Amino acid sequence: MSGQAAVSGERLWDSLMTMAAIGRTPAGGVRRLALSDEDRRARDLLVGWLREAGCAIRVDDLGNIYGRRPGADPAAAPVVCGSHLDTVPTGGRFDGALGVLGALEVVRAMNDAGVATSRPVEVVCWTNEEGARFAPAMLASGAVCGRFTVEEAYTAQDPDGRTFGDELRRIGYCGNAGDRLKAAAAYIELHVEQGPILECEGREIGIVEGVEGIAWGWTNVVGRAAHAGPTPMGDRRDALVAASRIVLGVRQMTADLSGLRATVGRCEVSPNTINVVPGAVRLSTDLRSRNAGVLEAASRRLQHLCAEVAREDGVEVLASEFWRSPPTPFHPLVVETVAEAAATLGYSAHRVWAGAGHDAKYVADRYPAGMIFVPSAGGLSHNEAEWTSQEDCARGAAVLLGTALGLAGAA
Amino acid sequence: MSGQAAVSGERLWDSLMTMAAIGRTPAGGVRRLALSDEDRRARDLLVGWLREAGCAIRVDDLGNIYGRRPGADPAAAPVVCGSHLDTVPTGGRFDGALGVLGALEVVRAMNDAGVATSRPVEVVCWTNEEGARFAPAMLASGAVCGRFTVEEAYTAQDPDGRTFGDELRRIGYCGNAGDRLKAAAAYIELHVEQGPILECEGREIGIVEGVEGIAWGWTNVVGRAAHAGPTPMGDRRDALVAASRIVLGVRQMTADLSGLRATVGRCEVSPNTINVVPGAVRLSTDLRSRNAGVLEAASRRLQHLCAEVAREDGVEVLASEFWRSPPTPFHPLVVETVAEAAATLGYSAHRVWAGAGHDAKYVADRYPAGMIFVPSAGGLSHNEAEWTSQEDCARGAAVLLGTALGLAGAA
Repeated sequence: MSGQAAVSGERLWDSLMTMAAIGRTPAGGVRRLALSDEDRRARDLLVGWLREAGCAIRVDDLGNIYGRRPGADPAAAPVVCGSHLDTVPTGGRFDGALGVLGALEVVRAMNDAGVATSRPVEVVCWTNEEGARFAPAMLASGAVCGRFTVEEAYTAQDPDGRTFGDELRRIGYCGNAGDRLKAAAAYIELHVEQGPILECEGREIGIVEGVEGIAWGWTNVVGRAAHAGPTPMGDRRDALVAASRIVLGVRQMTADLSGLRATVGRCEVSPNTINVVPGAVRLSTDLRSRNAGVLEAASRRLQHLCAEVAREDGVEVLASEFWRSPPTPFHPLVVETVAEAAATLGYSAHRVWAGAGHDAKYVADRYPAGMIFVPSAGGLSHNEAEWTSQEDCARGAAVLLGTALGLAGAA
Repeated sequence: MSGQAAVSGERLWDSLMTMAAIGRTPAGGVRRLALSDEDRRARDLLVGWLREAGCAIRVDDLGNIYGRRPGADPAAAPVVCGSHLDTVPTGGRFDGALGVLGALEVVRAMNDAGVATSRPVEVVCWTNEEGARFAPAMLASGAVCGRFTVEEAYTAQDPDGRTFGDELRRIGYCGNAGDRLKAAAAYIELHVEQGPILECEGREIGIVEGVEGIAWGWTNVVGRAAHAGPTPMGDRRDALVAASRIVLGVRQMTADLSGLRATVGRCEVSPNTINVVPGAVRLSTDLRSRNAGVLEAASRRLQHLCAEVAREDGVEVLASEFWRSPPTPFHPLVVETVAEAAATLGYSAHRVWAGAGHDAKYVADRYPAGMIFVPSAGGLSHNEAEWTSQEDCARGAAVLLGTALGLAGAA
């Protein structure tokens, strides 16, 4: 290591704002769906910047882009930093982009200071993290880390019937399977928090200890549609009344089970007419916890709740879970290196768990992984008004730099 | 009066089934929207039958059809019997048609027996009772009885933008304002119950004492949309949780306020996404009672409930009533004549209130009115499977005949 490497907050901000111009929405947000023309232009911009920073570029068969800064030991597994450049349809400027451009800033800062690391440092940009165009989310990091096959990825369709594979070839970013990430000493992802905790706690950095487990399900309530006029109250099997008990029961579970968060986000009523007693309701359930046991207990309680409501309200209730992702604790090596980097820089930090999915979750299946959070104003994300200040972005990149330096080792 | 008049259940049933063929649906129901080609064919059929029965036909400027059987005293106000021939989009064979064809059967039975009445007996077919094509419901009886202006009726639009006035002219049923109903000694409407009470109680005839009051409103709940992942439970303002408390509170009101029926039939959630805490919910409220005071008390309690939920859940709640129709008790003269006719015929009867709107409700503003109900199998109505047996139809028509004879007086 020669000089003392330091990130440039201004340069990082310039890169973020230049990137945000690609797919900019009238309201100041970003629409940059995976494998769209906007995604191609964003990739081209990134690749140009990585080249300028002296990185060797690889693109794998899922469109993931890697830019490697060599280490003193070319055989050593790299320290990999990155995130994604795709957005939801009305997304913000920071979700994903900060992790990719923060990693680019790390490389630039190392270059500026003439730092040599023992391990290579690699910037990665994962394809289709959001899943907003091609479900499921985190499709390409999942494929690289063994969660999905390349066929599953290629055949994923957007709402217009175009496939991931065709669109990947169309934008010219279908590379070679041999160029996938095959080794990593560590993976570190800088990301906006997408929640209010850091802001509420007045902390600058989130040391992310893991990604919470999630269980998604549907609860179908079947009662009997009937005319709201002549049907006596005692003769009703009102599916919405029963569904309301389930919504409140799910909320009550979060008071009873410590560490559980639970949301009923969708509610579809049939026939949904002012003067007809609802005959059927479909509710979604979203259960989250960092504790697999709590998630399992919540799932069991939901079943009990549904059985109770069915019995008492004379309706049929069927709750079925269609997806469960267990909690993923991050690797202590990465978590503690992040904590040390934040402490060395004198930033106030708070240990948190990620409540949303991130590429780091799948990468953690294979390699030691961790994340760094910076505050999201008002906790807003997946929103055109998403905002993280220049100073917060710079602090996050500085912690990413310190972590990468710590894990890559001095040459 | 010469012979003993008696209805023919077979003839009435034949007429009902012949009428039901106009607009028949594959599932055996009827789709005969107001002022459609099917409505025209149904009207043509009715007018032909009325002519064959010796009635003088009038059509007024709202398309209401009147067929008068003369009385001994031509200056006397008529006894009017009828209902409507339009249906909801997937309606049944009995709703409306039974009242019109039952009235036709009354005239046929009087003719067969050579009965002479003091007052004329008039069959009426009201236009657009359902409101399924042109809102609001009961538009033409309401216009004749002073609830709506003819301009309001003519400018009512269907979902394709066609107006009531244009469609009325198109099907050739726009008559003269001078031919409206201008006097009635009594109005009696035979109708299927559209509810389960008669069937449950095992009674053959419903003596309808009035039409319940209805208050319709919207309750808007505004919370704050947030990511279901990172947003702590204590930081949520979940509009669906608040709305669920309102749904259950509305249900509880029916236990606390005797004689109230209340329904939340619509529930629209925004953004209605599995992993987003609901930011806004719109609920419909349908409150019904035969007691205006109960309706008013329910409306006030709904306001209190909303204020309580708003305060406790940190959301905004606004409940606004957009339509209220007060309870309409029917005229004792008509109600008791119906009761006597049923008793004379030896039918088991039950005194009920209509929970749904009927043309009789508006007619009752101007003239002594009443209704006769016959059972609906399973309480089903506004449904292709709507069913009332031939025997029940015949019993209803027999009570209608007895009531009409009683009110029209022997010549």
